[in-house]
Amino acid sequence: MGPLITLTTDFGDGAYVAQMKGVILSLMPEARLVDVTHHVGAGDVREGAYLLECTVPAFPEESVHLAVVDPGVGTERRALAVRFARRTLLGPDNGLLTAFLGVADEIREITAESLFLPEVSPTFHGRDIFAPVAVHLAAGAALASVGPELLSPPVTLPELRAEGSEGLILHVDRFGNLITSFPSEILIDRPDAILTGPEGAVSQRAVTFGEAEPGVPFLYSGSGGRLEVAVAGGSAAKILGWGRGAELGLVDEA
Amino acid sequence: MGPLITLTTDFGDGAYVAQMKGVILSLMPEARLVDVTHHVGAGDVREGAYLLECTVPAFPEESVHLAVVDPGVGTERRALAVRFARRTLLGPDNGLLTAFLGVADEIREITAESLFLPEVSPTFHGRDIFAPVAVHLAAGAALASVGPELLSPPVTLPELRAEGSEGLILHVDRFGNLITSFPSEILIDRPDAILTGPEGAVSQRAVTFGEAEPGVPFLYSGSGGRLEVAVAGGSAAKILGWGRGAELGLVDEA
Amino acid sequence: MGPLITLTTDFGDGAYVAQMKGVILSLMPEARLVDVTHHVGAGDVREGAYLLECTVPAFPEESVHLAVVDPGVGTERRALAVRFARRTLLGPDNGLLTAFLGVADEIREITAESLFLPEVSPTFHGRDIFAPVAVHLAAGAALASVGPELLSPPVTLPELRAEGSEGLILHVDRFGNLITSFPSEILIDRPDAILTGPEGAVSQRAVTFGEAEPGVPFLYSGSGGRLEVAVAGGSAAKILGWGRGAELGLVDEA
Repeated sequence: MGPLITLTTDFGDGAYVAQMKGVILSLMPEARLVDVTHHVGAGDVREGAYLLECTVPAFPEESVHLAVVDPGVGTERRALAVRFARRTLLGPDNGLLTAFLGVADEIREITAESLFLPEVSPTFHGRDIFAPVAVHLAAGAALASVGPELLSPPVTLPELRAEGSEGLILHVDRFGNLITSFPSEILIDRPDAILTGPEGAVSQRAVTFGEAEPGVPFLYSGSGGRLEVAVAGGSAAKILGWGRGAELGLVDEA
Repeated sequence: MGPLITLTTDFGDGAYVAQMKGVILSLMPEARLVDVTHHVGAGDVREGAYLLECTVPAFPEESVHLAVVDPGVGTERRALAVRFARRTLLGPDNGLLTAFLGVADEIREITAESLFLPEVSPTFHGRDIFAPVAVHLAAGAALASVGPELLSPPVTLPELRAEGSEGLILHVDRFGNLITSFPSEILIDRPDAILTGPEGAVSQRAVTFGEAEPGVPFLYSGSGGRLEVAVAGGSAAKILGWGRGAELGLVDEA
Repeated sequence: MGPLITLTTDFGDGAYVAQMKGVILSLMPEARLVDVTHHVGAGDVREGAYLLECTVPAFPEESVHLAVVDPGVGTERRALAVRFARRTLLGPDNGLLTAFLGVADEIREITAESLFLPEVSPTFHGRDIFAPVAVHLAAGAALASVGPELLSPPVTLPELRAEGSEGLILHVDRFGNLITSFPSEILIDRPDAILTGPEGAVSQRAVTFGEAEPGVPFLYSGSGGRLEVAVAGGSAAKILGWGRGAELGLVDEA
């Protein structure tokens, strides 16, 4: 059974993802490919970082995770390979791998050009650099073989996990549920807090959709460990008019 | 070669489907996963039931089909495991598995908590209950091992297959073709019938798109055994203004 | 390890793709399936031809590529099987396989009904003809076994590769980048040329997004060998208002 390689990009529908898969399967026919999503908001590194945070740990040890949300492709931004909890991640050094950098066992800059495709397009490193290097690592090569340790710290996105009373919407799911950057522990630690957004506020709380009042936005602990906002039988995004990236606040009621 | 497990949900693009796949592949690395669709209308159990009806039989014997369109997650709704024509289906007891319940060899309620993930989120049974139980059954366990027989009949959606002159639109495909709940035998049994909808009616009939008059909606026998409405070179949904869930009638012309 | 079969269609989300996969896996459980895309514009044979052109060569030798963008299904249009660079392609004879026809080693018309499913729907040859024939060829059968050589040349789309100063937009990617039918060599051969479209023109050029002026459309050599138009930090499609199929011109500046 071949190595497991997941793909997470903002490439959407089209040719790019298939080209990456073709490169991987040409080099490693036995690879087992799993799409995480290719619908990260175009260039939204933060949303990509959140989606990786809550999916990578669900995959088995020795899985390889290739992530490309890369608005800086073709600039001097570095490319990273990361070893975390017996899993391997690859992606641009723009904060996309934030969730794993602080707890990584090893971080390397990808510089070994001999591993790249013979011709590297300035606009498609996913196909020409990340895909072949992912195959190299999936085959069992040491992380050190892709390049040196970092001379300066990697880019991280501290706003991915709100620590105070200011946060934001990381992701809006299919149902219009709003996934915030606040940890769900807020629900226990600040029992009187209400969530404020671009317009209006949410104070209701519920554990399941079944117990929530239909049509009324409520706070709950999401399956990904974040404070979320939902509406039973409706879309919180539509009803509140709040969207991805919107700024949020926590205020303790008097 | 590992067991074949298909996935059908209304989760859309995002993290949820990948989390389910991660759970399955962590427990059963050799599983072969196939996406049926993750774009069932949000919470549209009826559309999900139709899509399962016309895809599950195309897959080989001993395949396992995990279906999650589950607006009642976290309530008292039961979870089902069904054995049908040497295939296994899992899903919530809300009518999603309607097409297979009347002809099932065995139906069980999923209650064996020892098979679930250690922590069950109240909002994500697809990941925490259905995915690990699907692996258990794909590995060859008897259906009886997931729980007892039902004490009361399962929920079914009789409107999935219209029997009289009243029906509805179950699904609108990529081309704007309208898939109705009427069986395609109507075309033979009621040669003079016209189809009425929210506005206007359709009386033209054709066997192939090639023989139909461009721009004019026509009735035909769809590949899934239902009466469908299409427009050659156009979208019946746009031209008629009829959408998913719209009520339809059959009237015999004088 | 089973044969690799890719799928390229305009079927979108729904049941059709899964039905094709079910047929393939029922006949050949060991097949490894890869989706190229199912979001070719509905009936847009030309866009499909472009996406095949830039993805098929990325896949390994002996891969089989099943392509269905087939507005003429059910008419007299022929079905083709093509052998190209040790790869096999199947699709309707409507220009979808244009990129490979001129350089093919062998082209056959698919006529061997014994290979089809027992019942052939007049509207779904992807499932009933192409899928089982793809399995037959993936299993190693000679191309000649599916039918005779063509009595007349296959349909081709010469506009897929512009040769003079008139071209068009083949595809708009997720980022709003416009992929044109002009070869990227234009950038070298005609250093003073500007690109004209439905409204306005583009004269700026860049090699990477990083060096381009934010907000200003520029010409560059795309990863697929075509002249493309992009905007750093934005969508060229939105800013220019140019869309798929729009007519373009090249004019040399005075």
